[in-house]
Amino acid sequence: MTHPSIPVAVLGASGYTGGELIRLLQMHPRFRIAHAAAHSRAGSRLQEALPGVRGEAGGLILSPLEAPLPAEVELVFTALPHGTAAIRVKEMLAAGRKVVDLSADFRYRNEEVYKQAYELEHPCPELLSEAVFGLSEHARQAVSEARLVANPGCYPTSTLLPLLPLLKADVVDESRIIVDSKSGASGAGRGMKPELLYCELNEGVRAYGLPRHRHASEMEAGADLFCGRRIDVHFVPHILPMTRGMLTTLHLCGRNPGDWHRILREAYRNEAFVRILPEGSLPSTSFVRGSNRCDIALEVTGEDRAVVISCLDNLVKGAAGQALQNANIMFGLEETLALPQTAIWP
Amino acid sequence: MTHPSIPVAVLGASGYTGGELIRLLQMHPRFRIAHAAAHSRAGSRLQEALPGVRGEAGGLILSPLEAPLPAEVELVFTALPHGTAAIRVKEMLAAGRKVVDLSADFRYRNEEVYKQAYELEHPCPELLSEAVFGLSEHARQAVSEARLVANPGCYPTSTLLPLLPLLKADVVDESRIIVDSKSGASGAGRGMKPELLYCELNEGVRAYGLPRHRHASEMEAGADLFCGRRIDVHFVPHILPMTRGMLTTLHLCGRNPGDWHRILREAYRNEAFVRILPEGSLPSTSFVRGSNRCDIALEVTGEDRAVVISCLDNLVKGAAGQALQNANIMFGLEETLALPQTAIWP
Amino acid sequence: MTHPSIPVAVLGASGYTGGELIRLLQMHPRFRIAHAAAHSRAGSRLQEALPGVRGEAGGLILSPLEAPLPAEVELVFTALPHGTAAIRVKEMLAAGRKVVDLSADFRYRNEEVYKQAYELEHPCPELLSEAVFGLSEHARQAVSEARLVANPGCYPTSTLLPLLPLLKADVVDESRIIVDSKSGASGAGRGMKPELLYCELNEGVRAYGLPRHRHASEMEAGADLFCGRRIDVHFVPHILPMTRGMLTTLHLCGRNPGDWHRILREAYRNEAFVRILPEGSLPSTSFVRGSNRCDIALEVTGEDRAVVISCLDNLVKGAAGQALQNANIMFGLEETLALPQTAIWP
Amino acid sequence: MTHPSIPVAVLGASGYTGGELIRLLQMHPRFRIAHAAAHSRAGSRLQEALPGVRGEAGGLILSPLEAPLPAEVELVFTALPHGTAAIRVKEMLAAGRKVVDLSADFRYRNEEVYKQAYELEHPCPELLSEAVFGLSEHARQAVSEARLVANPGCYPTSTLLPLLPLLKADVVDESRIIVDSKSGASGAGRGMKPELLYCELNEGVRAYGLPRHRHASEMEAGADLFCGRRIDVHFVPHILPMTRGMLTTLHLCGRNPGDWHRILREAYRNEAFVRILPEGSLPSTSFVRGSNRCDIALEVTGEDRAVVISCLDNLVKGAAGQALQNANIMFGLEETLALPQTAIWP
Repeated sequence: MTHPSIPVAVLGASGYTGGELIRLLQMHPRFRIAHAAAHSRAGSRLQEALPGVRGEAGGLILSPLEAPLPAEVELVFTALPHGTAAIRVKEMLAAGRKVVDLSADFRYRNEEVYKQAYELEHPCPELLSEAVFGLSEHARQAVSEARLVANPGCYPTSTLLPLLPLLKADVVDESRIIVDSKSGASGAGRGMKPELLYCELNEGVRAYGLPRHRHASEMEAGADLFCGRRIDVHFVPHILPMTRGMLTTLHLCGRNPGDWHRILREAYRNEAFVRILPEGSLPSTSFVRGSNRCDIALEVTGEDRAVVISCLDNLVKGAAGQALQNANIMFGLEETLALPQTAIWP
Repeated sequence: MTHPSIPVAVLGASGYTGGELIRLLQMHPRFRIAHAAAHSRAGSRLQEALPGVRGEAGGLILSPLEAPLPAEVELVFTALPHGTAAIRVKEMLAAGRKVVDLSADFRYRNEEVYKQAYELEHPCPELLSEAVFGLSEHARQAVSEARLVANPGCYPTSTLLPLLPLLKADVVDESRIIVDSKSGASGAGRGMKPELLYCELNEGVRAYGLPRHRHASEMEAGADLFCGRRIDVHFVPHILPMTRGMLTTLHLCGRNPGDWHRILREAYRNEAFVRILPEGSLPSTSFVRGSNRCDIALEVTGEDRAVVISCLDNLVKGAAGQALQNANIMFGLEETLALPQTAIWP
Repeated sequence: MTHPSIPVAVLGASGYTGGELIRLLQMHPRFRIAHAAAHSRAGSRLQEALPGVRGEAGGLILSPLEAPLPAEVELVFTALPHGTAAIRVKEMLAAGRKVVDLSADFRYRNEEVYKQAYELEHPCPELLSEAVFGLSEHARQAVSEARLVANPGCYPTSTLLPLLPLLKADVVDESRIIVDSKSGASGAGRGMKPELLYCELNEGVRAYGLPRHRHASEMEAGADLFCGRRIDVHFVPHILPMTRGMLTTLHLCGRNPGDWHRILREAYRNEAFVRILPEGSLPSTSFVRGSNRCDIALEVTGEDRAVVISCLDNLVKGAAGQALQNANIMFGLEETLALPQTAIWP
Repeated sequence: MTHPSIPVAVLGASGYTGGELIRLLQMHPRFRIAHAAAHSRAGSRLQEALPGVRGEAGGLILSPLEAPLPAEVELVFTALPHGTAAIRVKEMLAAGRKVVDLSADFRYRNEEVYKQAYELEHPCPELLSEAVFGLSEHARQAVSEARLVANPGCYPTSTLLPLLPLLKADVVDESRIIVDSKSGASGAGRGMKPELLYCELNEGVRAYGLPRHRHASEMEAGADLFCGRRIDVHFVPHILPMTRGMLTTLHLCGRNPGDWHRILREAYRNEAFVRILPEGSLPSTSFVRGSNRCDIALEVTGEDRAVVISCLDNLVKGAAGQALQNANIMFGLEETLALPQTAIWP
């Protein structure tokens, strides 16, 4: 017996994140792409905007963002710039649709924090309390009941997955959390910026976003939300000469770091997408490329210290993959549908 | 109703090609990996030898190559060095199994050509006449009836797919076929060679395999096999600073090149994995990465000349993907099972 | 005894080629950068426009292109877009200065060929007959007497250096010259084009410029100029995921290819920057990165055929380095001043 | 008037560091390469072992390591593995030569620390007290009088240059120094290790060397030596998909971080090779590639915190360049001879 398909829409389908959603949705046995829209390439076929896309989806015509959606659409993925996203999200909810929003617009419960981080009045603050911050492994129940899921940012996902179990176990010094992240270039999006030209990015590494990147407050809000902890995150992101992949190095202090590996193992024992590496092993972002996995390793480096390292694909577990994982949960489907565990390696 | 799974084995599972087979097989709804063996990493789990692999397959223990296979295994993929492969293949056939061999051992009907190209007496020449050269789109019927499929090399696949329809149409000058190929580094395998070190390969391009690379004779044998033509291929392969991808530029002379685009379109009109680009479009290997596609473009560059360009992923359509496509055909399954059309892009 | 320095100007100093000129000029014992101008970053210091530049030159303020030059300037390098360059060149000559022009504007004697290739009326055709096409090794005498040197394009340099000695020896079939070039991304310049973004270029290779790239006619004009031969070049350029470097593969037919290696060796026996590799060796672009060298190899691939391969750094021997080599010749200086033979490797 | 040249030898000339020494020495107006030796490629010409090298040096025959040096040699660079280096160094000193040793063998005054870090009895501990730890900008006087200079490691150089002035000013919390470094692959040397293969390193980032990399104790020893401080370094190195370049991110606590930029500026005001970037600017390793520079930026990220970032080329300022800078000082030459300030960019 086959189940009827669930029609979904992707708004912002021509960017890297939107494109990754399209790729994953094509492998999905239950969701069907009924509508794809974009700002800059409306009118062209998906395979022109996203040169990797083929098959049925490749022939879809990109609608303008403001075009009405087919009535049948039950679920909308919004992969739009912050500010713009919120307005669309509100419309979609009003039309009775579920939404997974990949922008930052609904990641904060506190309107003021959003305003500070994004220097923008929130367009629809009334929805903030309803939105569920969809760090899937930690918000499963809430996501399953949500109309609106705010999909976490890539840096917060790569930080909170290793950090939350340690915060919950109350073993980490909350005032001395140092997060040093390394990201591939696709995290910076498809916009035309000189520093994203091949020759300017290749064969070089640089930090950016200092003194305070917006994602630091998202990490802090996540710790508050899931653990009721007020943490103080010192966060430095770096951009590397590679397309996909994010490695986050957490330099942590606290009590009994010799126990932390066990804490992490137990926290994620039954998870398909979070893997705690055996002691002595270290991950690489190349081991998770194209997959929805987050690989985590821990090394005790002193009596009261450890280094925790996480690796994920910023476009998958850090964006489109987690969005689809959330959508699977929202619709009561098997959580792993269309989400590879095995990476494209090499 | 679900069908019973078909148990398969992969011999040579720890190399790049074997690893790609494992990746694709994990997505396959009908084939099940019942056995994986390797020379150098026998005894370790698949996820140790292939760091991207997770899920059920990741836990499989790699057997030694000489270990007996589970009795249930119906199909064997041999991804072994030439010479070694042939002996295993013979054993597998004798045990009543079907085989897709990814080595060069059964790609020639003529024992002498093999001997010249590989400087080796063929270990079991009696099987050469039975083996089917599995360029899937051109050998579908024979593959469907075969016990033993010789999977084509990556360079011959990228050359023959665009070339065969033009040879069949008798429009190409057979004595002036120039093939200039550009390959990612994974095509050179996982062996320890100084010239494959990151720092020696990065930020550089070089030709290799001159004056005559072995794959030239495989191209010539393919033209003979499928079209009864004796062609003379002038082939120069190059290695590029990228992991996956192969672009082949064919510099061709002949009659009425203005007709060739139509000839190619018609030849592949109904194919899922071969795509003739619209006139004026040019492919990139990044548009097919991780997929089983071969994208082909044609540009008329003179009254009696054209340039034909093909792009594929050397590990997928150039190796493991085509092997699986052949296996699907051999078992009467839908040919596209577990074979992505959409690429991992970016 | 030290000699007085010669003041030079660089127009178009903020691009990749202009920047490479600045780098090389800083090492020059006789030329002194007295003026640097650019269109888009006028007013900023050189080290802001070119982040690698330091030392004295780094503090120079970029003038607007239309700013008057210091009276002392004796030599001007123009690294400007075609069309724009010609007008500046004319002004500079009128002011009694010598010019090395790195644009395409003075590379043709024939105004019509320029017009066809660049779809532009030439702004000052009266200078075409005076300009010297500065392929240094083949135009030394003319360059030494020139007021205006047209610096060759990177593709023509990489093609003509290996080809000219063979054409002069009359051993090559002039109607069947196939040129398949592979270039790093810096050859495409510093302009904002989507296809030059890191994520779109990385891990992929593509052809471009078909059916006929402008540089084909520059190669043909060069063969006519230096050998009085009318050749027919079939040229396909490709762009690779690397910053610097150009490899050109010439697929040639002709008489006695066994003699060609000797012909090339003799032609460049005394040259500092052209190196004919021993038979059996093949070059890589990584062996010439940052140097002014062109490495050339030849492989006989048939009774009447050979493959000739050249490697150079497109920004050095393919642009700024050859420009400086020409300037050295124009001023009677040692030709190798400030021009490295050794590459930055790895 | 020209000065007589000073004959030098390079032991270990076939590795990446030895090769970089050869490159820089070729540009040197006073040092002349009189001898080059290597373990694995003895008997071949330098240009065969180091494919980028040309000119006079390219023709030099590599001697075996144990071959006697020409009597004239005054200075020896030893770029050999630790343990091996010490024995050669002792011989060279006994023969009356000066030595710059690029191994770790003489970087510690304390034999026990060496033994712990390298798990090796020191072969000639009697020389430890004489050796000068050659962090050039901080050890100029001692280097100028030294017979034996221990050239610092790349990670310690990239860490101590930004850290020492802050330690000297007593503004940094010495127990909470976190060093997160990112290095290109050439720092791992030219040895054959599977993880250094192109396909294993490309498009991925990973940490290594945990829980305690040897260079941590070298950083601590350096702080003790230059400032008399006992610091506690928490150090995590990462390897990136690029050939050259090292970025070190220091996460620091302390007093009045608003003053630190001034402290750094004043410390390096007159230095040719250390550049403190203006506030608000951030460096990239691509801005220093091929140069002997170390670029440093500082961002105040809290009332008692700052992030300090340094960038250098691991093969130049992190190895061969600093070695040559030290040699210049030892021989009373201008410190900047043959050491570029301008990078190869792009």
